[in-house]
Amino acid sequence: MTSRLEETFYGQDFISVNQIKDRETVDELFDSAYEMEQAVAAHEVGDVLAGHAIPIIFYQPSTRTALSFLYAAKRLGAYSEAMHDMTFSSAAKGESLPDSIRAIQNVTSASAIVLRHPDDNSSQEAAYYADVPIINAGSGKREHPTQALLDLLTIHARRETLDNLKIALVGDLLYGRTVKSLALLLSRAGQNNQFTFVSAPQLRLPNEFLADLPNGTQFSQTENIQDALDADVLYMTRTQREWFEKEGKLDEYEELRAKLMLTKEMAQQMPEDSVIMHPLPRQEELRYGVDENPRAAYFDQMKYGLYMRMAILKAILVKG
Amino acid sequence: MTSRLEETFYGQDFISVNQIKDRETVDELFDSAYEMEQAVAAHEVGDVLAGHAIPIIFYQPSTRTALSFLYAAKRLGAYSEAMHDMTFSSAAKGESLPDSIRAIQNVTSASAIVLRHPDDNSSQEAAYYADVPIINAGSGKREHPTQALLDLLTIHARRETLDNLKIALVGDLLYGRTVKSLALLLSRAGQNNQFTFVSAPQLRLPNEFLADLPNGTQFSQTENIQDALDADVLYMTRTQREWFEKEGKLDEYEELRAKLMLTKEMAQQMPEDSVIMHPLPRQEELRYGVDENPRAAYFDQMKYGLYMRMAILKAILVKG
Amino acid sequence: MTSRLEETFYGQDFISVNQIKDRETVDELFDSAYEMEQAVAAHEVGDVLAGHAIPIIFYQPSTRTALSFLYAAKRLGAYSEAMHDMTFSSAAKGESLPDSIRAIQNVTSASAIVLRHPDDNSSQEAAYYADVPIINAGSGKREHPTQALLDLLTIHARRETLDNLKIALVGDLLYGRTVKSLALLLSRAGQNNQFTFVSAPQLRLPNEFLADLPNGTQFSQTENIQDALDADVLYMTRTQREWFEKEGKLDEYEELRAKLMLTKEMAQQMPEDSVIMHPLPRQEELRYGVDENPRAAYFDQMKYGLYMRMAILKAILVKG
Repeated sequence: MTSRLEETFYGQDFISVNQIKDRETVDELFDSAYEMEQAVAAHEVGDVLAGHAIPIIFYQPSTRTALSFLYAAKRLGAYSEAMHDMTFSSAAKGESLPDSIRAIQNVTSASAIVLRHPDDNSSQEAAYYADVPIINAGSGKREHPTQALLDLLTIHARRETLDNLKIALVGDLLYGRTVKSLALLLSRAGQNNQFTFVSAPQLRLPNEFLADLPNGTQFSQTENIQDALDADVLYMTRTQREWFEKEGKLDEYEELRAKLMLTKEMAQQMPEDSVIMHPLPRQEELRYGVDENPRAAYFDQMKYGLYMRMAILKAILVKG
Repeated sequence: MTSRLEETFYGQDFISVNQIKDRETVDELFDSAYEMEQAVAAHEVGDVLAGHAIPIIFYQPSTRTALSFLYAAKRLGAYSEAMHDMTFSSAAKGESLPDSIRAIQNVTSASAIVLRHPDDNSSQEAAYYADVPIINAGSGKREHPTQALLDLLTIHARRETLDNLKIALVGDLLYGRTVKSLALLLSRAGQNNQFTFVSAPQLRLPNEFLADLPNGTQFSQTENIQDALDADVLYMTRTQREWFEKEGKLDEYEELRAKLMLTKEMAQQMPEDSVIMHPLPRQEELRYGVDENPRAAYFDQMKYGLYMRMAILKAILVKG
Repeated sequence: MTSRLEETFYGQDFISVNQIKDRETVDELFDSAYEMEQAVAAHEVGDVLAGHAIPIIFYQPSTRTALSFLYAAKRLGAYSEAMHDMTFSSAAKGESLPDSIRAIQNVTSASAIVLRHPDDNSSQEAAYYADVPIINAGSGKREHPTQALLDLLTIHARRETLDNLKIALVGDLLYGRTVKSLALLLSRAGQNNQFTFVSAPQLRLPNEFLADLPNGTQFSQTENIQDALDADVLYMTRTQREWFEKEGKLDEYEELRAKLMLTKEMAQQMPEDSVIMHPLPRQEELRYGVDENPRAAYFDQMKYGLYMRMAILKAILVKG
């Protein structure tokens, strides 16, 4: 019998969280990721992807995400290499994405390609031209599906559930792709969760995004993190100074972001079993002393990223 | 009995297509490359180069060529690493090529070194100082021997012969090393082929190069690709705008390059079993619709590059 | 019984040569390094670090040191990747070293991290935040402990002793970390050695460094390399033009560095079994013809670097 995991992933591109239709798929990914955790801890030398090549190409540098995929591929036995900044390469001579994708696919005889790119539709475009699965490692302003899954895994590892949670998403919700991918995925995979979206009014989630949330999703919006300290999951992101600078509104920035910072004292007020997350890198939104709070899970997120990406690569390339 | 392949390659530098003296050597390389193709398709984990280190150092960035060698080395079991831009490294502090070559050889305990460099005599210089084989991955304006071999393999894979062919080489023939290496190799390895050199008058093959072609090589020259549409192999390259810009002749450029572009309609007029090639990256010389033509082989070239480089690395490092 | 090597290295950070307390530890490292030399020569495929990840992160580019660690890790079976210039990555967005270290540790599930950084206390800081051993691949102006050990191994391989030697250290002693690490280590591990420190008066070893040498260390200082040609080990380094340029004293520079250059003739006057060393890259301090002198050991140093780093990685990560 074909598993939901196999149906969703095997031989497929992974471009959007929307490809994950149900909780069963998520649970099967979790099971696989927890197995990966055991294998990594035991220093097992994986070979399920032996003989497969998985090039990793980034048009936006991100050391941590590139390394996460690279070591995930290596630990499963694949040949892999991270091109940390493709804008230095032939691309700089004006080569199109479709040509670069096909070139890298063929010179490596790739089984799958991991792509990060600033354009919203980059992964779709790459998938149209590639003969092998494209894995979206972050595209444009909206999608970062593997990050959403590792975030979900972190929540599950800490709380043992994806249901009946209060989730607060804080920071730059307008431009941030991480929070959007997470909200979409959790609203689909979990049940009876309540979202609080915390941001400056200028950086709220766009209305067209809110319209895409499943019917019946419970959410509220606020400008002040103080309103969200009862959350079970507090997901922090940075508010980009650049936006206010460009608009000539740096005064507003200083004032607004003060309402979006988490202090040591605020963290201590949160429910005891709550979880503080952040995709990192951070600026100053997590104040001195939060790191030492046991609720802080942002360094754990990166561990779960490795296990989840191992699970995803295996699901795409290994049948059954 | 020593094979021609072993005699030519084992333990040797590979710097110039001139090292390949006869068709037998080429045929033995082809046999090996076709075996590599099978191994790659079967996801075999090669180990003939296990325990060997093959550093790849590029003083001119070329993602695709570097990755081709890197995955060739990895797929044979070697330890390898691509230094995609050595001009960022110690070289920038003014280190000489002989010092850098010996440093990289010794810190890795290399079995061979792959080198790309803008100077014509860079590979010879490196080979003089190195204790291990140097493999030329493109040097200066004239030599790119592994590209010539992969081009030859592509022709052979499509046409099952290297003889009695009409070959048209199009574009910047003055500065392009790819076309020179290919013309030299094919004029030696094949029989009774006819070359047409298609370029702007300013960018013709230099006379000293034509003098190096074997006696009796049949060739003609033209400025217009229309004269070459009866070719069995149409090898396109780009004409560099930079040259005309530097000379203050951009008007001429626009006019000339129009005669060096292949349109969808022109491609359809070519013989049915003809092959359209290009080393990529391309600019606008392959017009809309050529990609879909079954004669187009330029993405296949890159596949054959992987197999050919695997065959070359093995021939240099494994006896017999 | 626990070996001295295990006591000193297993599960520990390696930040300073001061961690090596005695000759026994050095001898055990040498034994291990000579075994590595045999294994490398035999193209053995190591697996003692199979399943372990060792990311290599450099905030100061150094191709040769990064590659040395990279191939050391690979040859022992570890997963590894060299980030040759972290200043291009998230660090450029202002991420702190503690955050970057924990991120890279967790996304790779590292067993150890190799770090080069311009700050003197960078390795200590990283070690404070990391859960796994930090290996200092060069920090600030003072410490480069793995270089000191490979230098010692080179001396031992050539002279079969670390005692009763005349050692001359030449060049920029004020800013150079290599010479300081070597002098400290040899004054501790060897017996009855005599040091000559040869430098411009402006670039002498600082007094606080001299005070750190063990009691009874015999040394003299001079400005002229002619006074040191009776050395058993002549350790050359470059004198940095930048320092004199910054001070507006380029005239002095030309004059002073003439006294710090080794000519072919001077090298020939040295004792027959003496050893000429240099950490490379070099400028003009080794004049024409010295390379061909059998006393020259600077390319050998890099070979011993590979073996020594293999020995160090194994000592830190493998018990017993």
